[in-house]
Parts: sequence; structure tokens; C-alpha cells
Amino acid sequence: MTQSSVALGNDNGNGNVIRLAVSTVIFALRPAKHPSKKWDIVMPVVLRTRDPHEGKWALPGGWLREDEGLAAAASRTLAETTGLHPAYLEQLYAFGAVDRSPTRVVSVLYWALLRADAVQQRATPENVEWFSVDGLWGLAFDHDEIVQYALWRLQNKLDYSGIAQGFLPELFTLSDLREVHEAVLNKPLDPANFRRQVEGSGEIVPTDQFRKGSHRPARLYRTNSEVALASHGPLKPDTQ
Amino acid sequence: MTQSSVALGNDNGNGNVIRLAVSTVIFALRPAKHPSKKWDIVMPVVLRTRDPHEGKWALPGGWLREDEGLAAAASRTLAETTGLHPAYLEQLYAFGAVDRSPTRVVSVLYWALLRADAVQQRATPENVEWFSVDGLWGLAFDHDEIVQYALWRLQNKLDYSGIAQGFLPELFTLSDLREVHEAVLNKPLDPANFRRQVEGSGEIVPTDQFRKGSHRPARLYRTNSEVALASHGPLKPDTQ
Repeated sequence: MTQSSVALGNDNGNGNVIRLAVSTVIFALRPAKHPSKKWDIVMPVVLRTRDPHEGKWALPGGWLREDEGLAAAASRTLAETTGLHPAYLEQLYAFGAVDRSPTRVVSVLYWALLRADAVQQRATPENVEWFSVDGLWGLAFDHDEIVQYALWRLQNKLDYSGIAQGFLPELFTLSDLREVHEAVLNKPLDPANFRRQVEGSGEIVPTDQFRKGSHRPARLYRTNSEVALASHGPLKPDTQ
Repeated sequence: MTQSSVALGNDNGNGNVIRLAVSTVIFALRPAKHPSKKWDIVMPVVLRTRDPHEGKWALPGGWLREDEGLAAAASRTLAETTGLHPAYLEQLYAFGAVDRSPTRVVSVLYWALLRADAVQQRATPENVEWFSVDGLWGLAFDHDEIVQYALWRLQNKLDYSGIAQGFLPELFTLSDLREVHEAVLNKPLDPANFRRQVEGSGEIVPTDQFRKGSHRPARLYRTNSEVALASHGPLKPDTQ
């Protein structure tokens, strides 16, 4: 990283710079309209009120400030645009294609899962809409591609982490968890096979509590916190 | 992303900007000195010849140019500093802590696995050293933490992807693959259990070829390309 490479790098000697933005993909569940599943996966997008892409919907985000880390900037811009405050934002990917914006902008994407009650806690600003991710196209910039990548990561992570529990309260039944998997994978799952796989994964721990309802009582489970913590890896929060 | 937020963002009105760098973690295998395993995992680092951190070893990298994508910048700066040209670089993480450098620098990290023959193909520049990752500390900036995170990702990916084959030629034996896993996990693995797990994973496909040697002939396997391709996800190369 020499001084000359600085001139060649982020400032090509003509005053142009590469600007750094952060954006956030928030996934939440909403009761499905279609009878074949219980939940739709929805996400908040913000109406752009000026060019570029004025009038299009875009992921919540904004510019990174010099005095804040990437995750802090993601949290701040998400709160400023949508009023949402997820407990934990995970870095998704840095998108830096030269032509993704009229000016050169590299966007570091974060993502989080929100429980339904966390969404309903506060009123949504009028320029924010929650759309189902099924067939969600026509977003600003390369945000269509970002959403598809985030969905792929979410589906991919179902197989080897306890991420699905991010949609659920602390205690949940196996049916609750299966219905989340069905929403993410967008297909029905066999209850018996699902029970075998999840109980074998060590992701969740049975409690001695049951949910009583119209059917026979269903055992309540909680997330295996050891597995959940491991999935964050060795990064300290201030690294993000 | 308003004009005012630009002023608040990457240029706080005093001409300071957040600069964007790319760096690369390259993992390769080297015959282990210690008799308990066959391979050590080694990585190339570059001697810094000026401040900050003059005289310390750092990950190969440099500044992002306005006219190149992130992955292209990672490939270019890796080739310029080490002469290495991996076929595929995967994005690892964006590191953006405010205090990670004397000036504000966000680094997008890429990583790749190299086959031993790819390393030996070309002479290493004199200011580049290959160190074993075991107990590798004292690198410049936050590169110690970056290396530990990359190692954690490598160990983590062993469980659910065909990443270990990135160290191996197209055809390999189960012993070859187990020895790579033992190097990455830094512990011995039971051959019978390993065979069961790998054969059950669908990651590799048996061929009708055998390696003949001093022992009885060992069947040769190849990577299941469907699994390998899926692990790249929906991102187009030019997105990276």
C-alpha cells in the first residue's frame, strides 16, 4: 500500500473517489396468503425520492461515516430509514461491480432475521414497504441480485446452522420450526423426516415445557446456544 | 443516498475519505516437519517496506482502482506482490474497524486455496515468505485477526462443502483427502469414520482408476462438480 498506489487507487488524480455505502437485507415472516404454506418471507424496501433510480424501491442503507464501523453504519442507516433495530446484523457480502451505480460505489451488505413481533412493535414509515420476496424484482441498482444472493445464503445456511430459529421466539415447537423451513425453502417438508434431521443436528434442545392447544400438547424446544455462538466465528463485534 | 449524506459520509467536508483496499489470504499445503501429520498449511505474506508497520509482514494486497471490480483488484494485487494467479478467488469478509489503520481504510478480503504444484511453478519474490499458519502472529494491521478468521472459515467449510479438494489434483485417494482434513483441523481423523462421512456426503465421486504403489491399489476419486458449482451461489463473476 504505497503512496503512489493511493493515487492510482481510490483517487485517480482527478479527484474522483470510490465511495463506500452499507445496505441491509431484513428477512421476516408474514402469514402467507397462499393456502399451501403458513408463512411468506417479507423484507422492507425504501422508496427512492431522487436520482439515481428515483421512484424505485431500494434496500435500506446509506453512506459509511469516517468515524463508524461497517456494522454500526448498517445499524444506523437501517434505523434511520426503517426504524428497525435488529439485535444482530451479520455481514453478507461486499458488492463492487464497476457499473452497479452511475458513480463508483462499493456497498457492504448486512442482513438480519426479524421475529414478527419485532416488526409489529413500531409503525412503518410511509416511504417503506414490506414486500414478499417471492418474485420481487425491479429494485434499484443491483438490489435484485443482492436479494437473490441473500435468499440463497439463507436457504444454504438452513442446512448447517440454527439460523431458522432467528424467526422464532425463545421457545418453539418442531412444527413452528418446520413451517419456517418450508417458508425459506418454499416447499413442503415431511414432518417425520424433518424431526429426525433436526433432532440429529444438535441445533435445538428439548425443554420440559409443552404448548397446549386444540391438538395434543406439543413439546417446546430452544436453540442450542453453543451451536448458535459458534456460527458467529472468532470475529469481535468491533471488527464488523 | 442523498447528496448531503455524501458530504456526511465518505467525505466529511474536510477532504478526508475512506479508502478501499483489497487483500488476499492464500492457503497452500507444505510437507509437515512434525511427524504427527503429513501437511502444514502455509500462506504467503509480504514484507512491508514503509510505514505504517514498516518491517512487518502483511497479507498481499493493494488499493482498489476505480475501473476494476473487487475480485479483479484482488487478483491484480496478488499477482503484483506474489506472482500467484489462483483460478478462483472467493470473497471472505470486509474489515472496516475505525482503528485498524492510521488512516481510515476498509479492506475487502479474498481467499483461495492453492495446489502445491501451483505454488512451486514460479519463484517467490524475495520480499515474500511462506509461513505455516500454526502460531503465525505479529502481522501488520489487523492481519492476525484476518488470518484467524480465514482459518475458522476454512475449518468451518470442511463440514459442508468440497473445499478441501481445492488443495488436491483432479484425482485423489481417500487418504489424500483425509490428510488434507487432518492438516486443516490440525488433528488426526479415524480413516474408517472419515470414509463413511465423505462417501455419504456426495462431495466426491469414485472413478474406475486406481493408484498403484507399495501398498494395495487405492481407488481414485474426483470432486462432484455439481456440489462444487452450487457452493459458488447465484453470484455472477462480475459481481465480485
